[in-house]
Amino acid sequence: MTRYATLAAILSQRIEQGLYPTGQRLPSVRTLSQEHGVSISTVQQAYRLLEESQLVEARPKSGYFVRGVRTLAELPAVTRPVQRPVDISQWEQVLELIRTKPREDLVQLGRGMPDISEPTLKPLIKALGHMGRHGDLRSLYYDNIQGVMGLREQIARLLLDSGCQISADQLVITTGCHEALSAGLRAVCQPGDIVAVDSPCFHGTMQTLKGLGMKALEVPTDPLTGISLEALEMALDQWPIKAILLTPNCNNPLGYIMPEARKQRLLTLAQRHDVAIIEDDVYGDIAYQYPRPRTIKSFDDDGRVLLCSSFSKTLAPGLRIGWIAPGRYLERVLHMKYIGTGSTATQPQLAIADFIRHGHYLQHLRRMRTRYQQNRDLMTGWIMKYFPPGTRVSQPRGGFMLWIELDDEFDTLRLNRYLERQGVQIAVGSIFSASGKYRNCLRINYAPKLTSEIEQAVRRVGETIQSLLLAPVAGIESALAQRG
Amino acid sequence: MTRYATLAAILSQRIEQGLYPTGQRLPSVRTLSQEHGVSISTVQQAYRLLEESQLVEARPKSGYFVRGVRTLAELPAVTRPVQRPVDISQWEQVLELIRTKPREDLVQLGRGMPDISEPTLKPLIKALGHMGRHGDLRSLYYDNIQGVMGLREQIARLLLDSGCQISADQLVITTGCHEALSAGLRAVCQPGDIVAVDSPCFHGTMQTLKGLGMKALEVPTDPLTGISLEALEMALDQWPIKAILLTPNCNNPLGYIMPEARKQRLLTLAQRHDVAIIEDDVYGDIAYQYPRPRTIKSFDDDGRVLLCSSFSKTLAPGLRIGWIAPGRYLERVLHMKYIGTGSTATQPQLAIADFIRHGHYLQHLRRMRTRYQQNRDLMTGWIMKYFPPGTRVSQPRGGFMLWIELDDEFDTLRLNRYLERQGVQIAVGSIFSASGKYRNCLRINYAPKLTSEIEQAVRRVGETIQSLLLAPVAGIESALAQRG
Ligand SMILES: Cc1ncc(COP(=O)(O)O)c(C=O)c1O
Ligand SMILES: Cc1ncc(COP(=O)(O)O)c(C=O)c1O
Repeated sequence: MTRYATLAAILSQRIEQGLYPTGQRLPSVRTLSQEHGVSISTVQQAYRLLEESQLVEARPKSGYFVRGVRTLAELPAVTRPVQRPVDISQWEQVLELIRTKPREDLVQLGRGMPDISEPTLKPLIKALGHMGRHGDLRSLYYDNIQGVMGLREQIARLLLDSGCQISADQLVITTGCHEALSAGLRAVCQPGDIVAVDSPCFHGTMQTLKGLGMKALEVPTDPLTGISLEALEMALDQWPIKAILLTPNCNNPLGYIMPEARKQRLLTLAQRHDVAIIEDDVYGDIAYQYPRPRTIKSFDDDGRVLLCSSFSKTLAPGLRIGWIAPGRYLERVLHMKYIGTGSTATQPQLAIADFIRHGHYLQHLRRMRTRYQQNRDLMTGWIMKYFPPGTRVSQPRGGFMLWIELDDEFDTLRLNRYLERQGVQIAVGSIFSASGKYRNCLRINYAPKLTSEIEQAVRRVGETIQSLLLAPVAGIESALAQRG
Repeated sequence: MTRYATLAAILSQRIEQGLYPTGQRLPSVRTLSQEHGVSISTVQQAYRLLEESQLVEARPKSGYFVRGVRTLAELPAVTRPVQRPVDISQWEQVLELIRTKPREDLVQLGRGMPDISEPTLKPLIKALGHMGRHGDLRSLYYDNIQGVMGLREQIARLLLDSGCQISADQLVITTGCHEALSAGLRAVCQPGDIVAVDSPCFHGTMQTLKGLGMKALEVPTDPLTGISLEALEMALDQWPIKAILLTPNCNNPLGYIMPEARKQRLLTLAQRHDVAIIEDDVYGDIAYQYPRPRTIKSFDDDGRVLLCSSFSKTLAPGLRIGWIAPGRYLERVLHMKYIGTGSTATQPQLAIADFIRHGHYLQHLRRMRTRYQQNRDLMTGWIMKYFPPGTRVSQPRGGFMLWIELDDEFDTLRLNRYLERQGVQIAVGSIFSASGKYRNCLRINYAPKLTSEIEQAVRRVGETIQSLLLAPVAGIESALAQRG
């Protein structure tokens, strides 16, 4: 990284962490130059970068100030899901979402796709194309069931950044994070068992519990600090919970990063009640802060945390390469992995190992961090502009999703029906709940280049919401049909 | 194909089907020339090809005769497994087999790898390398959860050859046949349920039952005609069986093709007892006969057959692309597929669709059919040459595995220990049984080019068997160490 980019990263992290609150004046160019031992022009370049990413604004003659876009929107409320174990529903709605594939005529704001158009991804595409050149056909064979050693070594190295010292031998490569979660769950729980989850919670996890015949106990969750430890403790006292499954870093869909102290307390709770933790870290590497946040796994001293992740959000989902660090459950996870899919595809493993080894992965992360953070601010601005007053919006600290909470009575399922005809798709809130809560919420993806076409799509969503709020149910069909 | 190759294929097929039994004189050159409307020299070339593949022999002045290599070896006995539902063991032995990866210093006769060195596979390697050229990045995205439509269409077309009329909508692409089997089983059975299987049976299937908490009921199986319908019927009367899982075409490990009439009777049995059939057809396309054998699925008229397959044996296992035609269980299979791995990797699906579309797949099959058939005869010859008298050998009619039965008391686990030090690996028989039977059996792969290095490896296996049979247990270590 260049000097000015490093400095910009440091400043943006401080802003991110609230050290410089919104509206506050930032240190002068001269002060920073002395503090960091860099030239005046380096500091100026750093500030220009921060201006471009809309984090700071220059006020003539006064200096640089922290911009406040994000705090203009109110946060979603702390969630209050049904606090008993429930069977999961909503499969039809999930199926509707995942059956779609990229289409020209549909702005898909609903799916969890990263942006793959950045040039920093090019070396990966090249590596993937290297299939079988020079007569090396190893990529057509099965490899070790645990995964290609070269890739496991690279992942072990990357894991250091999240505070984890895990050797390649303790890792299992999987077919995406999906398989990591599924194998992990099957390794520690039986059908009928109760699993505590943060709420709202990724629909894939919900459906996995459903498919495995397990019950979800949804725990209230704060949109800034994550799962409520108090509520979790009560639940652990009250129910025979077998595992806690959660996404503490850059949570999907809420976007929070659980503070370190709470991660440690959660682990202590799990130890006291002797339950396993399944930690989904699939967005952890695209936290906007640098260095990236620690995992719960990094505090784990008795192997009870199963850390699950993949390259689906950081690189590309079509690769289907993920991993799990299953701690003491290695043997069982390996068995579950074997019976689920056998060995993992060899070629993408070789290509990704190559990509990481040559430093391209970290470079790509750096770029995506900045890009997604800028997009978050832009998208938040659009939501506030086009959505009805009173709309509550999450403040993600990583990843590329916004969680939007509307009026209590609003029905996003109905909204989606109207939107489809207008060529827009969102993710309805109810699929993030075992019990079908959050019908008044939706999730929007801000990963792609935010073109005016997307702005128009967001505007259509906002306007449709407004009409649905105003129009009497009967008349709305025709009202909307006219504009359709 | 050239004329003479076509003629040779027709003749070899007739021999294969028993129309010309061993030792019989084949039609004269002149007769064939007239019958097929080809020149004398074309027929001569065809016979020369059949001679090379050791299917026929020329006897001076008398003409061509069907060679009897295969019938020189006695067949393995009809199996008599424990006939009650059992929990599955042997995971450690399976793990030992599947943890290995291709290695220079080890002749791996144990794993189920096809040969991937034929030039007919080149267009696939090229298609796989087309990743992202021309800015088409669709292969980096998730596609439809059911799989890429273009590939499903091609598979639907191929399925016609096995007598199946299945539309692309009724197919789900999976991560290899492993996932097809696993999703299929989870769709029709619950933990604790009993599944009837042919025996011996692919170790992956066994381990899947184990991992899903199901019980296997192993049914006696004939090495030429497959699962005993009589024994199966008794089992169905006696136990609450939920599904029948079997590999009727080019069975792994026995190599038989179940006759059509028996396939139909099996289906009738399943209908009468209202159980599902999970049909593993992973080797069906590399039957030595042409056209390929029909599937049980092709007779299915009420959607109870779940047909599972993949490109792992016909193309390459490292691709991890398979499929399932789940009949009436489509919705549940789709759910199980989603929670197991999410969407299947996009790029290999696009590449394989391309490969099939351009006719390369059928061309590759043609070549592999001939190659594997030749290899079968060569390997059978080696076994008979180097293994102790009385060794029983299967007569596979497709695929690339031999099943070898030794003296009742022989222990192939012990054999494998000795072989490892000599750089050879075999698959021990016990992993093909739920209850650890078949310790006196082993499976050998004859897919690769059968070099003299492989012949030497087979010879070492034979000699080690002989020494283990002769040497007293105590002294053998040193005896073998010397040769090690
Ligand atoms: C929190 C979370 N976990 C897991 C996954 C699944 O990841 P993969 O595509 O690697 O299976 C997703 C993707 O949508 C996700 O958002
Ligand atoms: C009978 C049988 N079924 C399924 C499989 C697994 O196939 P795949 O590699 O496509 O998962 C194998 C491979 O060993 C096999 O022999």
